[in-house]
Amino acid sequence: MEKIRVGIAGYGNLGRGTEDAIRQNDDMELLAVFTRRDPKSLEIKTPGAAVVSLDDAEEWKDKLDVVIICGGSATDLPEMTPKLAKIFNVVDSFDTHANIPQHIKNTGEAAKAAGNLAVVSAGWDPGLFSIARIYEMAALPKGETYTFWGPGVSQGHSDAIRRIKGVLDARQYTIPVPEALERVRAGENPELTTREKHTRLCYVVAEEGADLARIENEIKTMKNYFDQYDTTVNFVTEEELLRDHAGIPHGGFVIRSGKTAAGTAHTVEFSLKLESNPQFTSSVLCSCARAAVRMARRGETGCATMAEIRPCDLLPLSADEIHEKMI
Amino acid sequence: MEKIRVGIAGYGNLGRGTEDAIRQNDDMELLAVFTRRDPKSLEIKTPGAAVVSLDDAEEWKDKLDVVIICGGSATDLPEMTPKLAKIFNVVDSFDTHANIPQHIKNTGEAAKAAGNLAVVSAGWDPGLFSIARIYEMAALPKGETYTFWGPGVSQGHSDAIRRIKGVLDARQYTIPVPEALERVRAGENPELTTREKHTRLCYVVAEEGADLARIENEIKTMKNYFDQYDTTVNFVTEEELLRDHAGIPHGGFVIRSGKTAAGTAHTVEFSLKLESNPQFTSSVLCSCARAAVRMARRGETGCATMAEIRPCDLLPLSADEIHEKMI
Repeated sequence: MEKIRVGIAGYGNLGRGTEDAIRQNDDMELLAVFTRRDPKSLEIKTPGAAVVSLDDAEEWKDKLDVVIICGGSATDLPEMTPKLAKIFNVVDSFDTHANIPQHIKNTGEAAKAAGNLAVVSAGWDPGLFSIARIYEMAALPKGETYTFWGPGVSQGHSDAIRRIKGVLDARQYTIPVPEALERVRAGENPELTTREKHTRLCYVVAEEGADLARIENEIKTMKNYFDQYDTTVNFVTEEELLRDHAGIPHGGFVIRSGKTAAGTAHTVEFSLKLESNPQFTSSVLCSCARAAVRMARRGETGCATMAEIRPCDLLPLSADEIHEKMI
Repeated sequence: MEKIRVGIAGYGNLGRGTEDAIRQNDDMELLAVFTRRDPKSLEIKTPGAAVVSLDDAEEWKDKLDVVIICGGSATDLPEMTPKLAKIFNVVDSFDTHANIPQHIKNTGEAAKAAGNLAVVSAGWDPGLFSIARIYEMAALPKGETYTFWGPGVSQGHSDAIRRIKGVLDARQYTIPVPEALERVRAGENPELTTREKHTRLCYVVAEEGADLARIENEIKTMKNYFDQYDTTVNFVTEEELLRDHAGIPHGGFVIRSGKTAAGTAHTVEFSLKLESNPQFTSSVLCSCARAAVRMARRGETGCATMAEIRPCDLLPLSADEIHEKMI
């Protein structure tokens, strides 16, 4: 079997996770990592794979089937994805929900003009959770869908705490409220406020002598990030933070309940429990890279999301194998 | 908006559920019910819809966009689906897992020759559970997938009990073993025997004076159906059976846990809790009928399963709406 020739653009947590994930997919091989850093400064794990300056990506145009772009959604992907979609079939995990339509438009124009296929906003939310929301609504047109996140580390909220004066480091966990989950599961279709759905739990390392009461107050009243939530702040030592909170777990629930026309009630639930958010996301990106290559080989161009990917295209199985083993 | 013109073939539990489900989908209208019975004998709910002999289906060739075939998998669908796929785009819920490849082949040849698109084995298992197995394996290539069914009524097992001498009526519930579910959720990847995964709970109405011990023994030792399970038999009166066990609830769980390459563990779970198996199945069939029409309009022909349906095609939303609201 000829392997899918994969490139990675960006070599942070997600890029390294993607390198690992490619090793779990026997039909794929990593040939190049593109970086904005000095390529000589980058040590990667894959023997034989090249480390290349992002500026030289064009030279790899015919040597790769797909490039998985592992940048951040705030500033990297809005620029990188359309740019690389002019050269390669690409996959990214753009996750700023409000800007997804614009990102799709920009990427789609670039990809279409070049005859390439881009899959954006892949991963778990957006990604598997988006798909879950779609299947659940398709199965139950009349009903209510709820998404809960966590228990898990929110990078954005941890960063927000770190910006407070006197804070050395912090880790913020988003936690679904168990009672809310149970009411949704029971089919009550409750109206839930932001406060009723999630709580926030913070572990904070403060500078010596810092005013802990002020820090706690600044966290709890921080607009949008914390003020609408019941927030608990625990001060810990740096050692404790590193020992007990080094992981990046995450997960969540997409639950819909509704009634069919004759009045019977139904509940559909999809959930994830992840020990490492970036490693799981990387694994999903790999399956989408496979799908992107298949779609491109069928002549599809432009920009897709996981909503436009046929499930069968995600797996390294033939149609017959899918029908025999998976249906 | 022009509505999707739908026909139903077969008017049992599933056909009636599909008639109900169409009412919940504003972009669909039911125009005809095909039946093998005398059309005059059939009372349907939808004002204006025709009741037509299955023998006259051909006359409706250009009047319907899709026909949802609501027959049984044992004898109806293997014959009806290929036959109707020569006339219409069709959807069925063929669920004899071992024969799905053959059913796809037969239906695909008929549909392709006629330029039609067929979706077979839709519903929840096969159907949503098949899709869950695919997404879970795509996200975690190294891991183990477990499917649990229930708690719910198994029609086949209830029928098997009814065939025992001295039994007037029966209802059989399939129940997942809670400890097994918890071990799977905890990521233990246990090897589970048939007995360790599910128990069977039977409510039986016996003839007056029947030998209850013999009936109980015949149930518990019935080959394949019960002998590999821990089975509980409760004798009840006909009144109790009708009062407490009139519903057809079902559901289940598709759980996969596995590790990404760096060693972190992840669990993905999809579950259903259904008050009425046929009504929920009907609702899923409607969404697949919509997808079948869209695929046919794009020029796709032959036989697909839900694995070949793009999630977005299941919903009555535009691409822009999907990207704004669902991703």
